[in-house]
Amino acid sequence: MTDSRTDVTANDLAGRLCDVVGPAGIITDPAEMAGYLTDWRRAYAGNAMAVVRPADTAEVAEVVRLCDQAGVAVVPQGGNTGMCGGAVPDSSGRQLVVSLTRMRRIRDIDVANQTITVDAGTILQSVQEAAAGVGKLFPLSLGAQGSCTIGGNVATNAGGTAVLRYGTMRDLTLGLEVVLADGRIWNGLRGLRKDNTGYDLKQFFIGAEGTLGIITAAVLKLFPAVRSRATAWIAIHTTQAAVDLIGVFRDVAGDRLTGFELMSRQSVEFVVRHSPGVRNPVDGQYSWFALVELSDALPDAGLDAVIELALERAVQHDLVAEAVVASSAAQSAALWALREGISEAQNHEGPSLKHDVTVPVSGIPEFVARTDAALDKVVPGIRIVTYGHVGDGNLHYNLSKPPGSDDDVFRARAADLAGVIYDQISTFNGSISAEHGLGQAKAGILADYKDSCELGLMHDIKTLLDPRGLMNPGKVLPATDYIRP
Amino acid sequence: MTDSRTDVTANDLAGRLCDVVGPAGIITDPAEMAGYLTDWRRAYAGNAMAVVRPADTAEVAEVVRLCDQAGVAVVPQGGNTGMCGGAVPDSSGRQLVVSLTRMRRIRDIDVANQTITVDAGTILQSVQEAAAGVGKLFPLSLGAQGSCTIGGNVATNAGGTAVLRYGTMRDLTLGLEVVLADGRIWNGLRGLRKDNTGYDLKQFFIGAEGTLGIITAAVLKLFPAVRSRATAWIAIHTTQAAVDLIGVFRDVAGDRLTGFELMSRQSVEFVVRHSPGVRNPVDGQYSWFALVELSDALPDAGLDAVIELALERAVQHDLVAEAVVASSAAQSAALWALREGISEAQNHEGPSLKHDVTVPVSGIPEFVARTDAALDKVVPGIRIVTYGHVGDGNLHYNLSKPPGSDDDVFRARAADLAGVIYDQISTFNGSISAEHGLGQAKAGILADYKDSCELGLMHDIKTLLDPRGLMNPGKVLPATDYIRP
Repeated sequence: MTDSRTDVTANDLAGRLCDVVGPAGIITDPAEMAGYLTDWRRAYAGNAMAVVRPADTAEVAEVVRLCDQAGVAVVPQGGNTGMCGGAVPDSSGRQLVVSLTRMRRIRDIDVANQTITVDAGTILQSVQEAAAGVGKLFPLSLGAQGSCTIGGNVATNAGGTAVLRYGTMRDLTLGLEVVLADGRIWNGLRGLRKDNTGYDLKQFFIGAEGTLGIITAAVLKLFPAVRSRATAWIAIHTTQAAVDLIGVFRDVAGDRLTGFELMSRQSVEFVVRHSPGVRNPVDGQYSWFALVELSDALPDAGLDAVIELALERAVQHDLVAEAVVASSAAQSAALWALREGISEAQNHEGPSLKHDVTVPVSGIPEFVARTDAALDKVVPGIRIVTYGHVGDGNLHYNLSKPPGSDDDVFRARAADLAGVIYDQISTFNGSISAEHGLGQAKAGILADYKDSCELGLMHDIKTLLDPRGLMNPGKVLPATDYIRP
Repeated sequence: MTDSRTDVTANDLAGRLCDVVGPAGIITDPAEMAGYLTDWRRAYAGNAMAVVRPADTAEVAEVVRLCDQAGVAVVPQGGNTGMCGGAVPDSSGRQLVVSLTRMRRIRDIDVANQTITVDAGTILQSVQEAAAGVGKLFPLSLGAQGSCTIGGNVATNAGGTAVLRYGTMRDLTLGLEVVLADGRIWNGLRGLRKDNTGYDLKQFFIGAEGTLGIITAAVLKLFPAVRSRATAWIAIHTTQAAVDLIGVFRDVAGDRLTGFELMSRQSVEFVVRHSPGVRNPVDGQYSWFALVELSDALPDAGLDAVIELALERAVQHDLVAEAVVASSAAQSAALWALREGISEAQNHEGPSLKHDVTVPVSGIPEFVARTDAALDKVVPGIRIVTYGHVGDGNLHYNLSKPPGSDDDVFRARAADLAGVIYDQISTFNGSISAEHGLGQAKAGILADYKDSCELGLMHDIKTLLDPRGLMNPGKVLPATDYIRP
């Protein structure tokens, strides 16, 4: 092995990669590659010179080192379940996809330290199950948990339904192992809850979507197992009442409040219409619905009584139109099905334009009112499917065409409609990407919503850690901004 | 105003600074400066060309810009309560201390969003009180809370007694405003719990001890008020039993567990000996004592029953020698006095050599056994005052001389003794600074305990954000490592 840059050309790279990962670790057949080149929603499609599937961190490092020498760009990929095309290569056919899916060892579970150390390619659900196997909880929970990987979760700082209580993946990550752009391995796999020995390097790579290095392993926090749950479905007249209701539940239930999801009537109507067997347990034609979940480590924690206490106070303040508390696990699952069916149900109503945004919780009422009005001006009759993890200020602001109108005409307004939402976000000091990241979907518009100081610092970091612009180019930041000729 | 670097020389800097901050904002009289040039423990003393006390962020920015032009180093200072000399200038007299203590506005409290936005110079206790004033909790709690500032807390990623439940200052910080080394202001004052729009810049500055920029304001998380507390004092035979006991309390009490402090018998004996009126409520001569605290948002949360439940299970597993549950707030305060009196009590026993370290919780028994034995070999009869936030794996490993021996002889072994502890830390993949930071105390030994890849990245970041090496030089990293001639 030699360090000379001139040692590897793009032409002989495939052979050298094969030496590193073995014939079983490299795919060049177009049909076999196809699943790695398109995202699961088929919203983004690309091409690649090859897909490599390293077996361990040393192989990842050697692959990256060879690509650095050859000047070939690397696109790290986990479960390929992202929402913004962050793991899909460009169309040039000159990039290399590095799939982490062969690296799925659970390296260590330390029960007393409440930590688990896993390879980046480990499936989220495997981590949840391993934690449950030792009587602990790994709280990250999302729709794709059966196929998304921990590396992807860390690289996109994944959120989900339990952020209110447990935080995002950034909060759940104690240590990382990362292959840097030049092939060096940074070993930051420390399972420490306190460590003030200088700059916290792992923070660079969390949420950077593979643009600064490839995450190969992580130390994650575990939590006490949950032994009681209670779920309520609450009909609400206004977004202000919803915001006030969060306050009441937080105040009464404290840490027991693990989920607070809000759904517009339109969202719930779509689910009831398109999901057989799913019904809204509340009859009235209310504007909003909240799904509230409490949980506790105690097996008999009296959570129903805590919900009743919060509801009593909420009724006194006129915040609740009608409410149902689930009396069984099956009823609770039925309520969650109403929430989780929205995305799928919306697909039956034509194109779904998705936006994943945050504003401060207090700003939600005015933000929703203004944005709804502005969207209806652009496309009169537009159906607005607003729902999300409102306890974190996070709304999925999804849009469906007016009934009976043309799909393509609606799709053609996608950028205008997104602009309406993001411009409102801007005035509320919010975020144009709450939990989905930027990927290639939003890299190009970031400059419209970040000030030049912040963008400049982002460019500086990118240039520092990836001077040749070979780590997942075109994601997070536009490739043209940092690739030097 | 002009941007030319040659515009300001070190000689006319004082006058220019006075123009910016006004005569009331600059101190050059040696007697008046004295309090800013020595830390509160009088362990570090320095000198300065002046102390400036800007009134707002714009003034801080202009001060830093002038210093950048003049090539004068800047030492940011909050309450000057740090443990490692991080806020004390060097002895040259050529550095400028920038005290943030005039900037103590509470800019905003957003109850619905559970956030508070404050100037960096705001006293921690003022933030706690402002939160309580709106029925919320700001959970950071430390001995110096009456004089330390939020800016210092963020810059040192402060910890304290409630990290087990609420995390460190990094976990409590949602947004920052920072003056960069060239005087630009980065406005990252966002109060969002989810924001995945690229690299998370605030993470740079948290825990960087002012070496990458000056924090001028922060958005902090608030939590539901605590309305019930329960405290127990538990005698334990071994460190392994202590570690297992944490597991039992976590498992039974879940989020209610807010504190788990461990103290060696030596620590408790010192307090009982030197603090009038303080007694150990447990009679036996046990090796270790744990102070356990549970809390809850509910006013009548039945926490005593939860403690009893945990203790029952602990007794079944033979983890508890003897236990007392506080039956009143006064009793609880008396138990906390035993814990909080250790540092002061130790001062009566001669020089106190302090070390603030973390290992994974599971490693504590073996770490303590090996370290105690190794320390006793270096100084036979040494008295080891081990205590700390053991739920986070954090131990204050403090040392007192053998009874009757000479102070200076003991002090002369300080570096050897620290080396013994830190070398053990290294073999347990721990941290040589859990919550106190590096400051000037540990900047020089960092290279012995970090690998070259990590150190190299730290230097790269320092050079990126502070290319002239003017931001708090000699803290975190040795000044010689990055100052260019």
